Amino acid sequence: MTYRVGIDFGGTSAKVGLVDNKNRIVVSSSLSTEGFPTPHTFTRKLAGVCREIINGKNVKSLGIGVAGDIDFDRGLIRVSPNLGWKNVPLRNLMQRYFRFRVVLDNDANAAAWGLYKTQVGKHVKNMIAVTLGTGIGGGLILNGQLYRGATGSAGEIGHMTIDERGRRCNCGNRGCLETYAGAFHLIRRVKEDLANGVQSLLQSVYKKDPQAISPLLLSQAARHGDRYAISVWNDVGHVLGLALGNLVYVFNPELIILTGGVSQAGDLILEPLKKTLHRGTFKTPINAVRIQIARNAPHIGLIGASLL
Amino acid sequence: MTYRVGIDFGGTSAKVGLVDNKNRIVVSSSLSTEGFPTPHTFTRKLAGVCREIINGKNVKSLGIGVAGDIDFDRGLIRVSPNLGWKNVPLRNLMQRYFRFRVVLDNDANAAAWGLYKTQVGKHVKNMIAVTLGTGIGGGLILNGQLYRGATGSAGEIGHMTIDERGRRCNCGNRGCLETYAGAFHLIRRVKEDLANGVQSLLQSVYKKDPQAISPLLLSQAARHGDRYAISVWNDVGHVLGLALGNLVYVFNPELIILTGGVSQAGDLILEPLKKTLHRGTFKTPINAVRIQIARNAPHIGLIGASLL
Repeated sequence: MTYRVGIDFGGTSAKVGLVDNKNRIVVSSSLSTEGFPTPHTFTRKLAGVCREIINGKNVKSLGIGVAGDIDFDRGLIRVSPNLGWKNVPLRNLMQRYFRFRVVLDNDANAAAWGLYKTQVGKHVKNMIAVTLGTGIGGGLILNGQLYRGATGSAGEIGHMTIDERGRRCNCGNRGCLETYAGAFHLIRRVKEDLANGVQSLLQSVYKKDPQAISPLLLSQAARHGDRYAISVWNDVGHVLGLALGNLVYVFNPELIILTGGVSQAGDLILEPLKKTLHRGTFKTPINAVRIQIARNAPHIGLIGASLL
Repeated sequence: MTYRVGIDFGGTSAKVGLVDNKNRIVVSSSLSTEGFPTPHTFTRKLAGVCREIINGKNVKSLGIGVAGDIDFDRGLIRVSPNLGWKNVPLRNLMQRYFRFRVVLDNDANAAAWGLYKTQVGKHVKNMIAVTLGTGIGGGLILNGQLYRGATGSAGEIGHMTIDERGRRCNCGNRGCLETYAGAFHLIRRVKEDLANGVQSLLQSVYKKDPQAISPLLLSQAARHGDRYAISVWNDVGHVLGLALGNLVYVFNPELIILTGGVSQAGDLILEPLKKTLHRGTFKTPINAVRIQIARNAPHIGLIGASLL
């Protein structure tokens, strides 16, 4: 039996897992970046954690997915805003500790590749994975391969402009997709509406604890018939329909797969999304695409990284 | 010496050319669809025109680019609105007359491939060709190959939504890119403004002959300092900047090449386009892309088709 190591390196910690041939996590661990003042000291400790979980087993590769602007070819973290790291050659830093191959990629690419390899049939050649989390990321599978583009930056779906007069995004532009459908902006919008006195089942929760408002609660309220919550999900689905419609016209994929916390709203998003998508008359690419929510896979980032 | 035949099949006529190894057109001809009641009778005549220009020379392939919804794999014209054809297996109809290989593709793909092979260095692997004509089309070169997507519909850049409250497009949606930057809608908008009495050098032309208003005249007016004309080109460039910005974030290409009549406005478009493109703070993919106007190549559709 051979194994692969996957590392999902998020905002403040790295999840490490040993993954077997059947894409099951055999052992896992995690390491917080706190207490490690430099990437070098952190990497040394991370390599130690990997050695522990490998524990002498036959490992053929190690893949790392990191949130941020990643240079795949050079194995470089250009910028990771959450980590506060700039120009860190993480692949080479880690490679020094191991004989097997180490690769580094963007976390959205790792998740897209993981979904493609574990949840999607081989007949699908062109697929877009959309990660609906705090922000919105994306990964593109084209002709059966992960497509990275000129600088490894491809797939930044969250920063497509939906309405240039919209809300200001972290990226400096206005009205990016993630200002409508990313959890951060979505929850902020809901809290503003609740503060302004909108009628909703969520008011009682909000009055007790504003921090309790979450995409999950918003889904539950909608399923209980709360008109406000339903209208919010209709907006989210509609805007996703606009953005994915653009991608369908440009990429003509067979499959779009939605993942991440916000995607768990399921039909609350999918129905308005499909309604918007089917408005136009140029149907060939629209009829050719299936849109689905990924099966629940909390460790897909880690498993995907191991498959890179 | 071996040759290739290229056919650029536009709204009402097909241009046919014999192309040599150096991508020069050696002989050419054209055939109007008028007077041929069915695709079959037209194809028979078209094959005859090809034979005439081939005139016994050593031809290795024939490529046809057609405006419309084309199924590349099956060699089928699904719909060509201009020709009024539906479900015409043009590749097989033509293949019956020749021993060498016949291929059929969308005209924007043919033009993109032609530009890639004749105007772009091999170091460019990922490129978007944007055809700014009456409408707006596009062709994608990814990893050095023409990317067609699941049904051969990829690259329909003109129908990306810029503002869903915008003008109604032929496709049934509102605010598609081509309602801002395609010549048809652009000229309609200018005529409306002129009819409403906007101050412009173009008023005298418009009063003599409204049909004389063209993208070329609009460029000339702008270069003479006409504020109205400059503001129109600023709008066009800005909207193209928004749309291409989305594509840069998603595709991360090395090159975007603009072609077609409207692109001849040159810097009048490029300057506002780049200004809009550089607004955001996520610079890696923006700094990696070069945006340029294609060198004048009136027969690029025909040459590109021959190279398919």
